[in-house]
Amino acid sequence: MFFVLKNIGYLCENNSYTFFCMKKTICGAMALLMGFVGAGAETVSSPDGNVVLDFTLTQTGEPQYAITYKGKDVIKPSRLGLKLKSGGDLTDGFTIAGVDTLTVDETWKPVWGEESQIRNHYKEMAVKLKQPSTKREMDVRFRVFDDGVGFRYEFPMQKKLSYFTVTDEVTEFAMPGDLTAWWIPGDNDTQEYEYTRSRLSKISKHYDSTVNPTYVWQGKTGPNDVQTALMLKTDDGLYVNLHEAALVDYPVMHLRLNPETLTFTSLLAPDAVGDKAHMQSDCTTPWRTVIVSDDARDILASRITLNLNEPCAIEDVSWIKPCKYVGVWWEMINRMSKWSYTNDMPNIHLDRVDYTKTKPHGKHGATNENVKRYIDFAAKYGFDAVLVEGWNIGWEDWSGKEKDEVFDFITPYPDFDLPMLRDYAKEKGVKLIMHHETSSSVRNYERRMDEAYKFMKDNGYDAVKSGYVGNIIPAGSNHYSQWTNNHYLHAIKKAADYKIMVNAHEAVRPTGLCRTWPNLIGNESARGSEYHAFGGTTPGHTAILPFTRLIGGPMDYTPGLFENDISKYNPKNKSWVNTTLANQLSLYVTMSSPLQMAADVPETYEKFIDAFQFIKDVALDWDESYYLEAEPMEYVTTARKAKGEERWFVGGTNGMEPRTATVDFSFLPKGKKFKAVIYRDGKDAHYKTNPQSYVIEEKTITSKTKLKIAEAASGGFAITITPA
Amino acid sequence: MFFVLKNIGYLCENNSYTFFCMKKTICGAMALLMGFVGAGAETVSSPDGNVVLDFTLTQTGEPQYAITYKGKDVIKPSRLGLKLKSGGDLTDGFTIAGVDTLTVDETWKPVWGEESQIRNHYKEMAVKLKQPSTKREMDVRFRVFDDGVGFRYEFPMQKKLSYFTVTDEVTEFAMPGDLTAWWIPGDNDTQEYEYTRSRLSKISKHYDSTVNPTYVWQGKTGPNDVQTALMLKTDDGLYVNLHEAALVDYPVMHLRLNPETLTFTSLLAPDAVGDKAHMQSDCTTPWRTVIVSDDARDILASRITLNLNEPCAIEDVSWIKPCKYVGVWWEMINRMSKWSYTNDMPNIHLDRVDYTKTKPHGKHGATNENVKRYIDFAAKYGFDAVLVEGWNIGWEDWSGKEKDEVFDFITPYPDFDLPMLRDYAKEKGVKLIMHHETSSSVRNYERRMDEAYKFMKDNGYDAVKSGYVGNIIPAGSNHYSQWTNNHYLHAIKKAADYKIMVNAHEAVRPTGLCRTWPNLIGNESARGSEYHAFGGTTPGHTAILPFTRLIGGPMDYTPGLFENDISKYNPKNKSWVNTTLANQLSLYVTMSSPLQMAADVPETYEKFIDAFQFIKDVALDWDESYYLEAEPMEYVTTARKAKGEERWFVGGTNGMEPRTATVDFSFLPKGKKFKAVIYRDGKDAHYKTNPQSYVIEEKTITSKTKLKIAEAASGGFAITITPA
Repeated sequence: MFFVLKNIGYLCENNSYTFFCMKKTICGAMALLMGFVGAGAETVSSPDGNVVLDFTLTQTGEPQYAITYKGKDVIKPSRLGLKLKSGGDLTDGFTIAGVDTLTVDETWKPVWGEESQIRNHYKEMAVKLKQPSTKREMDVRFRVFDDGVGFRYEFPMQKKLSYFTVTDEVTEFAMPGDLTAWWIPGDNDTQEYEYTRSRLSKISKHYDSTVNPTYVWQGKTGPNDVQTALMLKTDDGLYVNLHEAALVDYPVMHLRLNPETLTFTSLLAPDAVGDKAHMQSDCTTPWRTVIVSDDARDILASRITLNLNEPCAIEDVSWIKPCKYVGVWWEMINRMSKWSYTNDMPNIHLDRVDYTKTKPHGKHGATNENVKRYIDFAAKYGFDAVLVEGWNIGWEDWSGKEKDEVFDFITPYPDFDLPMLRDYAKEKGVKLIMHHETSSSVRNYERRMDEAYKFMKDNGYDAVKSGYVGNIIPAGSNHYSQWTNNHYLHAIKKAADYKIMVNAHEAVRPTGLCRTWPNLIGNESARGSEYHAFGGTTPGHTAILPFTRLIGGPMDYTPGLFENDISKYNPKNKSWVNTTLANQLSLYVTMSSPLQMAADVPETYEKFIDAFQFIKDVALDWDESYYLEAEPMEYVTTARKAKGEERWFVGGTNGMEPRTATVDFSFLPKGKKFKAVIYRDGKDAHYKTNPQSYVIEEKTITSKTKLKIAEAASGGFAITITPA
Repeated sequence: MFFVLKNIGYLCENNSYTFFCMKKTICGAMALLMGFVGAGAETVSSPDGNVVLDFTLTQTGEPQYAITYKGKDVIKPSRLGLKLKSGGDLTDGFTIAGVDTLTVDETWKPVWGEESQIRNHYKEMAVKLKQPSTKREMDVRFRVFDDGVGFRYEFPMQKKLSYFTVTDEVTEFAMPGDLTAWWIPGDNDTQEYEYTRSRLSKISKHYDSTVNPTYVWQGKTGPNDVQTALMLKTDDGLYVNLHEAALVDYPVMHLRLNPETLTFTSLLAPDAVGDKAHMQSDCTTPWRTVIVSDDARDILASRITLNLNEPCAIEDVSWIKPCKYVGVWWEMINRMSKWSYTNDMPNIHLDRVDYTKTKPHGKHGATNENVKRYIDFAAKYGFDAVLVEGWNIGWEDWSGKEKDEVFDFITPYPDFDLPMLRDYAKEKGVKLIMHHETSSSVRNYERRMDEAYKFMKDNGYDAVKSGYVGNIIPAGSNHYSQWTNNHYLHAIKKAADYKIMVNAHEAVRPTGLCRTWPNLIGNESARGSEYHAFGGTTPGHTAILPFTRLIGGPMDYTPGLFENDISKYNPKNKSWVNTTLANQLSLYVTMSSPLQMAADVPETYEKFIDAFQFIKDVALDWDESYYLEAEPMEYVTTARKAKGEERWFVGGTNGMEPRTATVDFSFLPKGKKFKAVIYRDGKDAHYKTNPQSYVIEEKTITSKTKLKIAEAASGGFAITITPA
């Protein structure tokens, strides 16, 4: 069915690094059928033939699809379509008006990421559907990769389907059995949950006992609902991941399980009146993704999510740079210091507050002295930047007040001398990272955004951590609706205009948009390390995140917590960091991000300066990544080659059960010797009883070396490899 | 009870015109009682003693008020207070912690308006309430004028009432009988209704048959609900008007009648989840106003609404100038021409549309040639400006599509050569008026507002007509909610930053904010003259608007329709302008506005050039106004002296019943002769059968002259007076 049409040159995305371009092979199809085809079936297979996508139009004209992997069911026959507010649903009564097929094999270069070149190799089938009774057209475009499938709905410009409101997407994912799932509950405002591992049939049973976020907002959606990226495993060893790619101008897709049929149906985040998406043809939905393999490591290696996003939209990307940073932050999270300045006032009116007339409470974190201490520390250990939270006025009443004008993003507290600190940091060769907490007052942020970004550039800031704590304003909107998703992208695009990098917390979880907008260098959108100071997070969390949250893009997880006993910082806080110190080091490799924080406080790092060396050394950007061992929520062992360098790093992150990792160094160049510095759990290490027990040892290795490394409960290891 | 405390100088608001300042007399009170007073009663009377306000705290600590005028009940005992989402209601359980009183007698100068000096004379009583069970404080501040009462709730900054959500305001207006009311139905999105005259007890009966706006949006609120300003009349001849002043950061107040008790209760426009207002102390509600007199003319003469607003917030007001204009508009309303450019495309994507590749439909109104024709006309007859609608791309699918990015406000259609027309208009001494239809996509407008305003200034525009047709985006929000009201004010404030005057259509109805923001030179917010092309408006409409809609501020009513038969413009449109031509002239005086349009098309005016003379001559801004005759919905006769000129204008607007107006010219300086040019209905004039029958005659008059002038059904007259 597939024939090569032509080879064309391909303009690389990352034209700032190199002009090296890969060939793009576009294959064309003979299958374009003119006119109606009617009910029928179409099939497309992955380039290697392992993944087979079957499209069927039933006798009632209902579109369905099914996916197999090496002959095993992955998605059983499942409905496709959308319900509309008016004009009739796009769920049945279709005929096939044509089928376009195509094969693409191209390689592109991300600005940053787990690999410096990414192969995008798939066979595509676009099924052109027509609903004769309404004269409306809808295409379903499938892209079948060796490691899974992406598909989306497309609506060509047409008179009979010009504007339409989606009330529900009926896309189904019919499970081939009662799979094991690693899931967090459906919620339109937060993903800051711990993951639960259960059979599909047991999701609703566990629902009430899922560990809730510290900040509970508008709440969960329902007892059979889960969020994506959803990790699944069949009893015969197939790993399946469901998510979406290129979420643009559309609400987030959660999944609602029918526990009788074990079928998931799309559950879109609603607007304030319960509608889901307002669409204008020509347009598309995001891609719905099914990543599948019989090897868990392939889930981590999959590039489907990035490949389904549009190429880089930023011409000059020279200003987008990976960044390792420290910050005036952990001391606030653990309540040693505060974001706020005073306790004098019941509330703050931004337009008339005068802080110089208030009595400081004395616990303000972002003081000149303290920030200088962090700048000094960053400079001493070669960090790129210092994040400072609580620098700007308004923190006295920022959260939970449904306050509209909560921050102005440009006015520092009286004890934060911005010009002085700006100049001090510059002198020390360190960048300051801006902080824009919006308190979810979206309009307030948009109104002030130009001024805030301009203020950043005027003062030498080139990256911002933004935050969306609390209920979205206006009331009735939520974090994951179409309207709010459009805001996040607006903020990223406008930041790009100002050459500003964005690290958005509490925003919608990523769906690979960093390919198109590589200034989106980070997101939170999951339960970050801060929860270790909010009562602790169960071991295994960072061994499931690479299978779930990280499928869409990097996370500003903020690892590097060396002090487990939070009461040492704040006697009132009895929280415990539920990992070993070596586990914390491993995260810099297993959870790849161009933005990595050393989250703990300087005085703690000074106590463990030998272990801290790994954080100093570890790279942020990679030529290649090697997924050595992986099982969801149990362990992840990853090796990566630093971009443009002869340095490699390995991380082993372990879950609850102690185990022995086997590190196969065959990814190294053959015939050479290398020095490996290994940071691993001590023999007696345990995340509860002895988390700071670690061993640092040097070994000479080659590509033939295989090392067995013991990992404690919630432990791990990290390795720095350089030519011997 | 009242003692003069001090006289202080008062900085006049309009410092661009003169430095003439009036004295402000502030009177203080002895009644400040420390500590709890408990249940009790307080009374305050107007300076002339006619209006008496009684405040009572019942045995259960429920605050109430009542108003009498010359001993007659105006508002019978009525509850005060607010229901809150949490923390308990602010409706009872109060004690009186103190009472502050004050007398103010000051005169201030508006930038423009019906008078060049406005006296603000009232006695004030602030009742300080405390709710011992919750330790919360709420003040009710009453201002009692000779012509009515304003009162509002005030919330001092306090720990126990720092942030709160109002779920309902329980403010009552208990009617002293089954009054006659002139009302439009409650609706949170539009006021574009015809008024109904009925007894209170019959409101719900008429509710379903109220004439709806052409653009029905989210719909009415309920069968016993009416909007303010609400005009009322008792059987013994008291005229009562209920409205609000200084609507800032709060939802619109409608009124819900209990037909059993004939009591109105406040009905606030909700947000998307049904909450009403998010408040942060210290703060206040808007003023609730009760204007009362036994002479209907006093309702028109009342300055309570302006007086209860804050002084001018704009320092330099020299750029705010009254404006008489024509526009490429009526030809679109009656469908001779169109806002849009092409029929080629099912919809428009602003970011990728290329109009130069589409086929024009040939009906576009804002073409170079047509706009030049209007500019020529404006220049020839001395108009200040030309409004051009449909000049910018996006009109093909602007309405009813819930479209987010509907306009960019800066890109002209290919046949509108903005630089050429800008220069052409400048050369002719005419301004162009910008048009920003937002399609109620509030966020889109805010995002583009800076660029749009800057674009205006760069191209010499200094005024904008904005529009809010359709449902507010995001869904669930409405036109009159707190969130959207904040938007309108944001647009006005930001316009002031750019020295831009705003004429906002379909926005919230005005509440005197033009005192504070005199760049708000106009609003629609009622059924404008355009409805004469949408099937017609019943006679009497413009004789009720001065008692209702205009209480809050001027209206861009767009009078001057000389051609009654709309089918002459567009054979398909059988609408009829239900007034005589003389009635149209009268509106320029009876409906005062610093912004007045000559709404009809140039070719029509050329046919009636003698009558058109009045529109050319009439002033826009006034030293004094004299309300000669008035009865709601029946007739209004008003005289005004042009600001800084020895010219007077009289308008007589009649309703359905033919009558003879008596014009008493005693407002003219004594002992002088004046030339009066009278434009009146012809003997056989009738709005349906002979609307263009008019007589123009000159008379010599003095201050002793009294003229009887016949007014036809929906007729009227206009007079220009100059020294003889």
